[in-house]
Amino acid sequence: MNRVQKLQKLLPQLNVDALYISSPKDLYYLLGVDLSKGALLVLKERAHLIVDGRYFEACKKQCSIDVLLEAKSIYQTLLQGIRSIGFDDETTSFALYQKLTSLFAGSTLQPIHSPVLALRIIKDDEEIEKIKASATLCSDGFDYIVTLLKESITEKELAIELELFWKKRGASGPAFAPIIAFGANSAMPHHRASSKPLTKNQIVLIDIGVVLDGYNSDMTRMVNFGAIDPRLEEIELVVQLAQAVAIKACKAGVLSSELDQVARDFIKQEGFGDYFTHGLGHGVGLDIHELPFVKKDAAIKDILLQSGMVVTIEPGIYLPDVGGVRIEDMVLVQENSCLSFTRQAHEPIKIG
Amino acid sequence: MNRVQKLQKLLPQLNVDALYISSPKDLYYLLGVDLSKGALLVLKERAHLIVDGRYFEACKKQCSIDVLLEAKSIYQTLLQGIRSIGFDDETTSFALYQKLTSLFAGSTLQPIHSPVLALRIIKDDEEIEKIKASATLCSDGFDYIVTLLKESITEKELAIELELFWKKRGASGPAFAPIIAFGANSAMPHHRASSKPLTKNQIVLIDIGVVLDGYNSDMTRMVNFGAIDPRLEEIELVVQLAQAVAIKACKAGVLSSELDQVARDFIKQEGFGDYFTHGLGHGVGLDIHELPFVKKDAAIKDILLQSGMVVTIEPGIYLPDVGGVRIEDMVLVQENSCLSFTRQAHEPIKIG
Repeated sequence: MNRVQKLQKLLPQLNVDALYISSPKDLYYLLGVDLSKGALLVLKERAHLIVDGRYFEACKKQCSIDVLLEAKSIYQTLLQGIRSIGFDDETTSFALYQKLTSLFAGSTLQPIHSPVLALRIIKDDEEIEKIKASATLCSDGFDYIVTLLKESITEKELAIELELFWKKRGASGPAFAPIIAFGANSAMPHHRASSKPLTKNQIVLIDIGVVLDGYNSDMTRMVNFGAIDPRLEEIELVVQLAQAVAIKACKAGVLSSELDQVARDFIKQEGFGDYFTHGLGHGVGLDIHELPFVKKDAAIKDILLQSGMVVTIEPGIYLPDVGGVRIEDMVLVQENSCLSFTRQAHEPIKIG
Repeated sequence: MNRVQKLQKLLPQLNVDALYISSPKDLYYLLGVDLSKGALLVLKERAHLIVDGRYFEACKKQCSIDVLLEAKSIYQTLLQGIRSIGFDDETTSFALYQKLTSLFAGSTLQPIHSPVLALRIIKDDEEIEKIKASATLCSDGFDYIVTLLKESITEKELAIELELFWKKRGASGPAFAPIIAFGANSAMPHHRASSKPLTKNQIVLIDIGVVLDGYNSDMTRMVNFGAIDPRLEEIELVVQLAQAVAIKACKAGVLSSELDQVARDFIKQEGFGDYFTHGLGHGVGLDIHELPFVKKDAAIKDILLQSGMVVTIEPGIYLPDVGGVRIEDMVLVQENSCLSFTRQAHEPIKIG
């Protein structure tokens, strides 16, 4: 059963006669085509891809489903007898919603929270292979930039070398702006690589990810470049243990909020509860942040972890103006455990 | 008058008491802060930035306006006496719209088409300097990769070298995946650099752009690597002339659709009307594609060009399976003319 057919099977439980899918990532997932714009109309027995002139010829060659040239008039015929059409309320702008209201005047529009993500949340074997390849390339890049660490190299120089390393090996790019943070910069979870040079006795936080064949990866490790502040050594150990406890707890049947709580409780009990200021992790796949979100107060409903989900486990402790520590693996949830895609040991790497 | 104050001045003509702004690009434009998530509430006499714990401390340091920690409860106080709140219907998802409906229960929500883009569409002096710097770096990169053209180098190798060149000079990245297309690949306007090697007597299309200090640039030039197909030589001349005619016509007071028509008429009259399959250009700024769109059937209303707008002028002719030609400048619209940011000559570069 292909992915479009799987989505067709979901229509009854979504309680709609059809789905209108327009997010480029969803179209790539369902059809394997890379479009900046286009729409897939999924009905019980058929599906139509609607694109503009730029993509029409290429899609006709690439897709096994019916491809139509965009025009207002086509919807009336396609939607005859269709009462309700679901759309993704996350990726549909209010402006597009209003446009659809007029295009689909004879039907009812039904907002649905990420209907394709409900499929994408469980990775199939082909996807797991791609994620594994992405994570391996990510780890290769990590090992490479660790060899470059020396006094006076800047965060940005490392980020540039890393991106080049990845691109030469087929990556389409980094999954996000590499977070390479020296010293006190590591206290900012969303730091961007700057022109700060490395000096002796600094902690180095390296949070990086790459996109290979459409799939993202994500990892974080710490490097002690010389002798670091004892407070940072202490939190390195606490974070490492918190992460180990969370990895041990991560398996099918656990609620995403419970998994977050496991790490949070551990860090709180060690006295650093106020300094773990973000969620424990997030799903990874075609998007670098996707369902399930592993946090306590997830905006979307709490998710029961299932085999085939891929999430990050990344507790962190941040001491303002001193430094921060985060350790992150990307793991595959399995029945009784989870399997890490991140090959590096969890201990801080000691250099100098 | 700062940019937030300019937006406050627009409230009466937008016919709302307040604006809710949440697009990261708009927040960067208005406040100079780089947030992945946050909201600015703009009222007649005051403005409040609402962020979560990740950004609270940094924003308090960086912003001159009131910064508040996100919480459901704060809106009731902030919005006392506010009847109508405008939001951007392009950057607001349907899900966020529904959330706002409940958060702002006492007020009416009013969809507005890109209210901040209405300011962003006219670039101020500071922005023009940044765009100029971005365009200069883009042109530098073009000159650099032209020196690398030789038999057997691949499209992708050039793209990688280009990105590295830019990053080493301070760019945050390419504005879009570089379109470097050899031979028949140039017939696809949205081609992505592939592993195709360059061979003698091929046409080369190079459409590239970079992001520097937040601002995008965009340019396209052609290279004849050896002796190319005479049909392609013919369209190179037609496109070059069509672009020159359009650049001449580009000035304040012209409708964006009229400008598109000038180039379209010229190409049609030369017999290639069916092969110019996209719009003439688009605005450039913090986004690589932004208002005004220079095309005939712009989804948004036709825009009268004004001094201070920055647009691309990029006619193209594409002969399926043979090859395509596009020539693109990024220009600043002025009272009686326009000024190109793209320093390269328009003629195809002849190598070999």
